[in-house]
Amino acid sequence: MAISDYFPIFDKLTVKEQEEFLHRAVSRTLPKGALLHNGDSTCMGLILIRSGQLRVFITSEEGREITLYRLFERDICLFSASCVFNSIQFDVTITAEKESQVWIIPPDYYRALMEESVVVSNYTNQLMATRFTDVMWLIEQLMWKSFDKRLAHFLMEECAIENTHVLKITHETIAAHLGTAREVVTRMLKYFQTEGIVRLTRGTIEITDIEKLKQLDET
Amino acid sequence: MAISDYFPIFDKLTVKEQEEFLHRAVSRTLPKGALLHNGDSTCMGLILIRSGQLRVFITSEEGREITLYRLFERDICLFSASCVFNSIQFDVTITAEKESQVWIIPPDYYRALMEESVVVSNYTNQLMATRFTDVMWLIEQLMWKSFDKRLAHFLMEECAIENTHVLKITHETIAAHLGTAREVVTRMLKYFQTEGIVRLTRGTIEITDIEKLKQLDET
Repeated sequence: MAISDYFPIFDKLTVKEQEEFLHRAVSRTLPKGALLHNGDSTCMGLILIRSGQLRVFITSEEGREITLYRLFERDICLFSASCVFNSIQFDVTITAEKESQVWIIPPDYYRALMEESVVVSNYTNQLMATRFTDVMWLIEQLMWKSFDKRLAHFLMEECAIENTHVLKITHETIAAHLGTAREVVTRMLKYFQTEGIVRLTRGTIEITDIEKLKQLDET
Repeated sequence: MAISDYFPIFDKLTVKEQEEFLHRAVSRTLPKGALLHNGDSTCMGLILIRSGQLRVFITSEEGREITLYRLFERDICLFSASCVFNSIQFDVTITAEKESQVWIIPPDYYRALMEESVVVSNYTNQLMATRFTDVMWLIEQLMWKSFDKRLAHFLMEECAIENTHVLKITHETIAAHLGTAREVVTRMLKYFQTEGIVRLTRGTIEITDIEKLKQLDET
C-alpha cells in the first residue's frame, strides 16, 4: 500500500504538490509505549497510521488520565500537529499503544500546504470535525451514562480491537482510559463477575456472557 | 459598525467575494429565548453576533442539559451551520439567552465560499479549533473539578456578564448550565450562604464575599 492510500485527498493535489508530499513524508516505526506528543513541548506533525494503535488522552495535575479517543490503521492524527493551529489552546498527550508503522508529515510543511491548498484546508476541517465528534461522544458518556455502561462499552471495544474474549489488561489501565480510580474499576468488575458477565483471574478479564455485556452497553 | 468588523478576514477576501458576502448576509434580531438550532432539524448558517448572547448546549434523552459554551458580541457561531460539515456527527442546541442582533450567512453560500477560498477555509478551521478548546475546558472541569469550584466559577462569570453582584437567576437554570440537578445547586448555594459567600432571597443570589468566591474558583 502506498502513502496515497492513507491520505484520502492525495489524488486531488496537483502533481507538484503530490511530488512534494511524497518527498516530505517520513516513514517511521513507533515502538509500543512511545510518547509522541505531550502538550506544548512537541510538535511532530500529522501522523498517518499504516498499522498499530495510538491513544490520545488528557492528564490532570495530580496525574489522573482519561482517554479522548484511540486511532487505528488509516486514521490520521491531527493533534500531533497542534502547533499548526494557533487556536488550539489545550494540551493532549499521545502515545503508541502498540508498535505502529506511520508516515509523519512535518508541521511546517503541512501548515504551508494548508495555507496554499483549499483542498487540504477543507480536508483538515473535516478531520477536526471528526475528532470533535469523538470528544462530544465522550462528554455525553461522562454526563449521561452510569459507570457500569461505560465499562461494558470499553470491554466490548477491547474485545473487538484485540479479537478475543480474554483481555490481558490491568484494572489500573482501564481506570486511566475511563478517567476513574482503580478501586472503582475493580469494584464494578467484581459485580460483573457475580452477575456472570466476566471471570477475573490474575492479569486477565475473560468475558463469559457477551450478550449481557452488549445489553448493558446498549441501554 | 459595519459587518466587516465582525468577520475578521473580510479584508482578505477578493473585492468580488466581499460584494457577494455583503449581499448574502442577512441582518436579524433574535428575540430572547429563540431556538436557533436543534440538532439536525435546522441549519441556519454562520451567525455573526453584533450584540446579545447565545447559549450552545447538549440535552440528554431525559431532558437534562449542560452548557458547552456561550457566545457574545463579536463571536461567530459555527455550529448553527453544522450541515456545512459532513464530519460533525453530534447534535447541539442553540438558543438566544438575550435579545441578539446578528448577521446570518446562509449555509449553502458559506459552503461554496469555503470550497473556493483558502482564506475562508483556514479561518473556519481556526473557529472550530476555538470551539474545540472551549469543549476541552469543559471536559477538564467535569473530570477534575469538584462541584463547589464549578459553581463558584459560574457565579463569577455571571457577575462579569451581567455586571452586578445581585444575580437574577433560578437554581434550575444554573443546574441546566452545569449539567446537574436543581437540588445539588440549592444544597451547594445554601452551603455558600453559611460560609458567608452569598445571600439567597427569592429569585436572586447576592454575592456577599467575592474574594472567597474567587479563591474557590482559582484553587
